[in-house]
Amino acid sequence: MKKQVRAIQYGIGPIGASILKLMREKEAIEIIGAIDTDPAKIGKDLGEVVGAPDAPWGIKVSGDAAGTLEQSADVVMHTTSSSLPKVMDQLIAAMEVGSCVVSTCEELSYPFRTHPELAAQLDKCAKDNGVALVGTGVNPGFVMDKLVITLAAVSQRIDHAKALRVVDASKRRLPLQKKIGAGLSVEEFRGKVKEGTIKHVGLPESVAMVADSLGLRVDQITETIDPKVATERVQTEFLTVEPGQAAGVHQIARGLSDGKELIYMELQMYVGAKDPADTVELTGHPTISLVIPGGSHGDIATASVAVNSIPSILEAPSGLRTSRDLPIGFFPPKGYR
Amino acid sequence: MKKQVRAIQYGIGPIGASILKLMREKEAIEIIGAIDTDPAKIGKDLGEVVGAPDAPWGIKVSGDAAGTLEQSADVVMHTTSSSLPKVMDQLIAAMEVGSCVVSTCEELSYPFRTHPELAAQLDKCAKDNGVALVGTGVNPGFVMDKLVITLAAVSQRIDHAKALRVVDASKRRLPLQKKIGAGLSVEEFRGKVKEGTIKHVGLPESVAMVADSLGLRVDQITETIDPKVATERVQTEFLTVEPGQAAGVHQIARGLSDGKELIYMELQMYVGAKDPADTVELTGHPTISLVIPGGSHGDIATASVAVNSIPSILEAPSGLRTSRDLPIGFFPPKGYR
Repeated sequence: MKKQVRAIQYGIGPIGASILKLMREKEAIEIIGAIDTDPAKIGKDLGEVVGAPDAPWGIKVSGDAAGTLEQSADVVMHTTSSSLPKVMDQLIAAMEVGSCVVSTCEELSYPFRTHPELAAQLDKCAKDNGVALVGTGVNPGFVMDKLVITLAAVSQRIDHAKALRVVDASKRRLPLQKKIGAGLSVEEFRGKVKEGTIKHVGLPESVAMVADSLGLRVDQITETIDPKVATERVQTEFLTVEPGQAAGVHQIARGLSDGKELIYMELQMYVGAKDPADTVELTGHPTISLVIPGGSHGDIATASVAVNSIPSILEAPSGLRTSRDLPIGFFPPKGYR
Repeated sequence: MKKQVRAIQYGIGPIGASILKLMREKEAIEIIGAIDTDPAKIGKDLGEVVGAPDAPWGIKVSGDAAGTLEQSADVVMHTTSSSLPKVMDQLIAAMEVGSCVVSTCEELSYPFRTHPELAAQLDKCAKDNGVALVGTGVNPGFVMDKLVITLAAVSQRIDHAKALRVVDASKRRLPLQKKIGAGLSVEEFRGKVKEGTIKHVGLPESVAMVADSLGLRVDQITETIDPKVATERVQTEFLTVEPGQAAGVHQIARGLSDGKELIYMELQMYVGAKDPADTVELTGHPTISLVIPGGSHGDIATASVAVNSIPSILEAPSGLRTSRDLPIGFFPPKGYR
């Protein structure tokens, strides 16, 4: 890794802001630019936009993506959308000026089954420009895939893999509580699932990554989204959920082989969750499990995983990489070296 | 990874035998030779020596290391000693004929502090011959280092790292129960520690790997070895430990900075252990922990980690690698591809 990493932030929503504040703490990183489309942010000081205690930073938010990317950062931190088709042009523009990309676009985390043509196009573009890109975060990117694959290192035979993530959304930001449908009636919830506005993106990507990494021959991936219905009143800083209302999402993805389940992934993200935790279980020889009591905090962890991926993406062979390929670790903090 | 991996086993003790049986199950691996110095094994069928149910394998154990290595396997699986100085010639001989090496030599897992000259010599030899080598296993190589570093991916700031491994040796093989001093008087135990025959090798290596990976500026590494004294009678298949006798080892290694503890690693390996588990705790932002209830089984897991490291060592850039650098996963089982 180079001693000084020049970074551009592409997208300054909550995750982008969190990544920026974390990058600011790393002595080895120099933030050289930031891009957003929001007129309320463009032209403002970046430190002020993200609410940093040490604002102003002396860097203005730009609405001109091409002009900002032109500085050819070592790495572009990309946090604009979950949808790969929507961000193709952005990723390609970053790579064409010679920048590596770390993106939190969930569909980029393992796009080989759902978007094989786009994956091939990105891989070619990366190789043509001698750079690497990766889609990562806490989920997909860590708890339901990287951690499963890492635990598999102690396995001799794996018959079934399971990951369960239970998140208590009570203390999370309002947009997230709304995004998971907390406080809606079950009917409203189902309506929003139908129109595609309630959904955690990335479970099928994690299933595919785990299947390919563990040699489990999955020929079908299914996914269901249901409301987690409140059984008692839940009050958060922002809203109240009555018994019978949706408290959040309950998603299950399965990897099947000839109809037989080989992989099971379950995400419960709701306000008032009793025992939040991340759990991995591998059935085989030996059968082994792993628990992160309390679970990894979504927003903090996604920013962490993205920033901590910088050293390995800069050292990776050019092309489209996944969290599976990268030996993720920790980005040396301020004061180191 | 090549579809067919030609492998040679160097050392056929319990771990070597376990690695051989596991490799035998992998369709992509062809075992082309095996080396040992034990006259009781030389010339015998390898499958019979390791007690494989599908013996004979049609491969004879050889006492001629140079002649066997000459076949230039893709990878040499090396399991002869914990001591790096003792195995230097073996590792170099394997690399000089163009083979990558996966070794369970504990001191090879992270030799940069304890044996910097030997590390540099191995790195140069590997690069000169276009191959890669790694020292790995369950501990060092996984629970107290790789897993700690992997969990650190969700961290924004780390102030302290802790790993605790509690192993119940009751169901392990007799040589292991003897090696940890089970059934000795406390005095006998301390005598054997002094003469260097009771010791789990690798804790300082794990401390060093974690320190460098997490940016914790450790300037001193300490280690203590004490008996875990039985408080009640413990009976195993092989021996009996009376109250007051040593039931096994209790080792603690610390990484200090100006006398302040930044890293704490504790290994309890004894017969009759009540709550075996592997636990990692990172204190910082956020503070997060991870538990493998029951712990990862030493012998099974070391063979697993070694064999599962084959794909990544074959794909690694040439040189001396560590488990920190390698994206470890799972070696596709028989029948896959």
